[in-house]
Amino acid sequence: MAEGGRVNWRLLLEWQTPTSAVLHMIKRVIYSGRTKYQEVDIVDTYDFGLCLVLDGKVQSSSADEKIYHESLVHPAMLTHPKPSRVLIIGGGEGATLREVLKHRTVEKAVMVDLDEEVVQLCKKYLPEFHMNSFDDPRVEIVFEDGRKYVERLPDGSFDVAIIDVTDPIEGGPSYLLYTTEFYRTLARKLSNDGVFATQATSTYYSRNCFAAIYKTAAYTFPVARAWHAFVPSYASEWGFVLGSKVADPLSLTPEEVGRRLKERGVNNLEFYSPDVHQRIFAVPPYLARAFEVAKPITDSSPVFMPA
Amino acid sequence: MAEGGRVNWRLLLEWQTPTSAVLHMIKRVIYSGRTKYQEVDIVDTYDFGLCLVLDGKVQSSSADEKIYHESLVHPAMLTHPKPSRVLIIGGGEGATLREVLKHRTVEKAVMVDLDEEVVQLCKKYLPEFHMNSFDDPRVEIVFEDGRKYVERLPDGSFDVAIIDVTDPIEGGPSYLLYTTEFYRTLARKLSNDGVFATQATSTYYSRNCFAAIYKTAAYTFPVARAWHAFVPSYASEWGFVLGSKVADPLSLTPEEVGRRLKERGVNNLEFYSPDVHQRIFAVPPYLARAFEVAKPITDSSPVFMPA
Amino acid sequence: MAEGGRVNWRLLLEWQTPTSAVLHMIKRVIYSGRTKYQEVDIVDTYDFGLCLVLDGKVQSSSADEKIYHESLVHPAMLTHPKPSRVLIIGGGEGATLREVLKHRTVEKAVMVDLDEEVVQLCKKYLPEFHMNSFDDPRVEIVFEDGRKYVERLPDGSFDVAIIDVTDPIEGGPSYLLYTTEFYRTLARKLSNDGVFATQATSTYYSRNCFAAIYKTAAYTFPVARAWHAFVPSYASEWGFVLGSKVADPLSLTPEEVGRRLKERGVNNLEFYSPDVHQRIFAVPPYLARAFEVAKPITDSSPVFMPA
Amino acid sequence: MAEGGRVNWRLLLEWQTPTSAVLHMIKRVIYSGRTKYQEVDIVDTYDFGLCLVLDGKVQSSSADEKIYHESLVHPAMLTHPKPSRVLIIGGGEGATLREVLKHRTVEKAVMVDLDEEVVQLCKKYLPEFHMNSFDDPRVEIVFEDGRKYVERLPDGSFDVAIIDVTDPIEGGPSYLLYTTEFYRTLARKLSNDGVFATQATSTYYSRNCFAAIYKTAAYTFPVARAWHAFVPSYASEWGFVLGSKVADPLSLTPEEVGRRLKERGVNNLEFYSPDVHQRIFAVPPYLARAFEVAKPITDSSPVFMPA
Repeated sequence: MAEGGRVNWRLLLEWQTPTSAVLHMIKRVIYSGRTKYQEVDIVDTYDFGLCLVLDGKVQSSSADEKIYHESLVHPAMLTHPKPSRVLIIGGGEGATLREVLKHRTVEKAVMVDLDEEVVQLCKKYLPEFHMNSFDDPRVEIVFEDGRKYVERLPDGSFDVAIIDVTDPIEGGPSYLLYTTEFYRTLARKLSNDGVFATQATSTYYSRNCFAAIYKTAAYTFPVARAWHAFVPSYASEWGFVLGSKVADPLSLTPEEVGRRLKERGVNNLEFYSPDVHQRIFAVPPYLARAFEVAKPITDSSPVFMPA
Repeated sequence: MAEGGRVNWRLLLEWQTPTSAVLHMIKRVIYSGRTKYQEVDIVDTYDFGLCLVLDGKVQSSSADEKIYHESLVHPAMLTHPKPSRVLIIGGGEGATLREVLKHRTVEKAVMVDLDEEVVQLCKKYLPEFHMNSFDDPRVEIVFEDGRKYVERLPDGSFDVAIIDVTDPIEGGPSYLLYTTEFYRTLARKLSNDGVFATQATSTYYSRNCFAAIYKTAAYTFPVARAWHAFVPSYASEWGFVLGSKVADPLSLTPEEVGRRLKERGVNNLEFYSPDVHQRIFAVPPYLARAFEVAKPITDSSPVFMPA
Repeated sequence: MAEGGRVNWRLLLEWQTPTSAVLHMIKRVIYSGRTKYQEVDIVDTYDFGLCLVLDGKVQSSSADEKIYHESLVHPAMLTHPKPSRVLIIGGGEGATLREVLKHRTVEKAVMVDLDEEVVQLCKKYLPEFHMNSFDDPRVEIVFEDGRKYVERLPDGSFDVAIIDVTDPIEGGPSYLLYTTEFYRTLARKLSNDGVFATQATSTYYSRNCFAAIYKTAAYTFPVARAWHAFVPSYASEWGFVLGSKVADPLSLTPEEVGRRLKERGVNNLEFYSPDVHQRIFAVPPYLARAFEVAKPITDSSPVFMPA
Repeated sequence: MAEGGRVNWRLLLEWQTPTSAVLHMIKRVIYSGRTKYQEVDIVDTYDFGLCLVLDGKVQSSSADEKIYHESLVHPAMLTHPKPSRVLIIGGGEGATLREVLKHRTVEKAVMVDLDEEVVQLCKKYLPEFHMNSFDDPRVEIVFEDGRKYVERLPDGSFDVAIIDVTDPIEGGPSYLLYTTEFYRTLARKLSNDGVFATQATSTYYSRNCFAAIYKTAAYTFPVARAWHAFVPSYASEWGFVLGSKVADPLSLTPEEVGRRLKERGVNNLEFYSPDVHQRIFAVPPYLARAFEVAKPITDSSPVFMPA
């Protein structure tokens, strides 16, 4: 508790369930306020550095955001043979955008985020997250509900779509971005070899939610895969799900993954690698069982965290 | 916080670092006391069921102990072609013993634990952990310091050794079970195709400790491998390390793993599977870098958690 | 947090309201269980020593139980000119009994507690609270609901009654011991110069409850007075209320209080003194306003903490 | 924990000792930063409203700052027959100033605070604390170390001095405002019938500190008195000490206090009243014993909280 002899008093308590939580001591509150859509805190923690916190949930931390963002972005980007037009829904910190832009194949990246204020706050306070990606000439930023934006798109508009939005919480702004209806629409708006990936909640605390998202992708795309990575600031292994019209990430050899990374100029990675790609898709029996019983999510029967 | 309208007041705060912790609400304190060696709490938590807590660190929980114990035991047991004599150091709950005994090849299992009181408490209060394994006729229990016991053994006494002791903490009872000197002695006491595995601390909060344990195994055994599994009640991905005189777990195909599991009668697993075995050994770049710089641990220069 | 270099993990979190609490670090859990009526924890805390905790609320601590028990007992005992027969309702720890027995005038003390198991636990684990008072030949212990016991008594049975029960919580065992109906019955069972005192909850967190208890005493006894003392382990100033058929504690001079204490052999006090008696009954304006608007409590319109 | 179905995550943990604390849930962080002298947080809590927090210690809360400020100011102001020139050291919120200015006798009030930034923050964010007192034409604000300011004053400059500075913490900015040397200097700068009052820390958690401050006043002024009030947001009864050259507050009858309050136009008080004045100075035996053994504080042997 002591920092140079003094005790600390500013805490963030992130509730995993009503009866367990993670306690972070905070060095400094950088920003604390409320946008039109959500509560926002940007805090500097002792153990995870800068954290973006939305409605009391850590979204990203300096210490480990690369684990999350690389896990979300690269399996999908590598699965596509030549991703040129990329759509990001959510991703306010700009770090998903940063990872997408690392692929030289990208000619256009559109990021659609509901909450302009959060993006402005991240621009101002989290430069090491976005690394000026917002200023890249290939980038267009749109402030709009992601689903409405997608519905208006011409068919075949994008090669890859990355869904980096908050968890599906009852009453929250994001749960309709995890449904069969949305994935079907999204599929049409992708090119014939299109791929999408989404964050898919905790593999443990909301394993049924993770499983249902996987089932929804499997129901709406010819190929669907689930994977996970331990994200320390979430105190949990985190799930990701990918849907693809043609290519299967499991068929990529480590050599091919390595070749594509090199060709596209993607380097300096913290978490993702050819070896990791090869091994990331393991599903232990306890998750396999959750996958078996899960059903696709629909607009009228959404699945909420924790479940 | 509410349980049927009432708020809860009994808490366990497990400190990961001096500035972050996991908070568990407790339904009931089953036992709380001090043995000759350590503080022991057995508590019933809302989210993880029964937990054995030694010196304030959750060792095992009903909810996820299988993830930990299967991860610790089966990769090593499967790597050995026919493990007959198995040594367990630590493992007071009896759950490591339970997993070892699942392999029909086992004719003798010796469990050496320093703290008889902890074993008696687990026998009494945690039957679903040990599942009466202590009464299996193949089993011998010895209450002694594991290192001293090993030093006295004739060479070639065991086929497999599983080290399931508390983390290497300064001043704690276990740190001398993670050193080059101990691993060298242990290697001699194993048969010519002997294999050992050890828990190896958090891959994140003590990644340098994990890496040093790996380096120590790699320095003392012809084959060494590191792997990890997310253990929710530890709020962390957990590391494991294996040293082997001959066989390499990476050379086992999923088919071979499946065949051995079946042949030996190992089933009803929660976490481990042929697919998981195949994929478990991935080392992401951030760990690979820790591995590169780590040095073998010696008695005179131990590595302590957190590091 | 550190105790000899180690961090502490056993906590008691006593909720004052749903949004504030007091956190106590615990050295040792002495007992934790459930009786027929309530959850019981006896814990050894770093700052308050041994604490008896019922349903998550600290009832008494080694460090400051004398402040509470002296405040509860002596103003009422001193107000009566010669208390011979004393009734205690509640008071499981035996410390209220201990203070009562200090008065040499007492020939008979009957303690009526609902929960025999709590009394047995206190006898066993909290000897410094009861100081063997249970074995005093003047003492009779009855395990029964206090209100039912009182209803059966002949009129004029006792000189002084001390009500030392848990707070009036909705659904709890004690709220019917704070009502007009009960106080009226109690008044009949007291001698013609009878006095009663009751604990009366927090003067701040439940000031309306305190005020309503005062009003109930004022409605049912010719003389009623309220006072308070800061009880550190409650993190609050605590209220007490007295009802008297004849004597008014405010009319006792410090000299008379001192004389009675000496005459009766009451000494070695931590909190109560002639000077304190003189000054304890001050009512600051913010409490006076609560008193003005409060109404007597009845069986059919009880007042619950926090209010 | 829930607020409209959501759980709260922003906490303030105020440590009373290394092993106990008060936990406040926070609605909103109004300001969080560091001045030249200290850490400053202004937060809106669920239970105490707006709080000014310096170095992790709650200084004042909307809910109960009147208890603190009235207790600090009025006993000293009333003890002086006609306080015209008043010096305040510290008191950044402006609430001590607000109480002083209520006395019509005051012609000049000088407030000397070390930390201009804190005063500016309070001006901006805590208008209900200062009530525009800073703009009163009788007021002069000086940003300087209080002790240095006092040392430069001509003798007899003020009638009353109120010391409202942070606790005497080792390494903190205030401990030299609690010593014999300072009180002696201060006495010279007061008029012949001068009175001073100071906050004097917790009567429980730092009772020896409280006692030493009393002893220091008693050593340097002809009359010294100690009193206390329960301040809920401090989770403690709080001590105050007064030194006077001539008048003794204990000799003021309730009638005289009432007359002076009325004459000076002091009304709408929350805590202080003629009755409270009469009764506030009680010293229970456990404090009396601390007073007996305490010694005056000197610059070279300061007393630090907690003690």
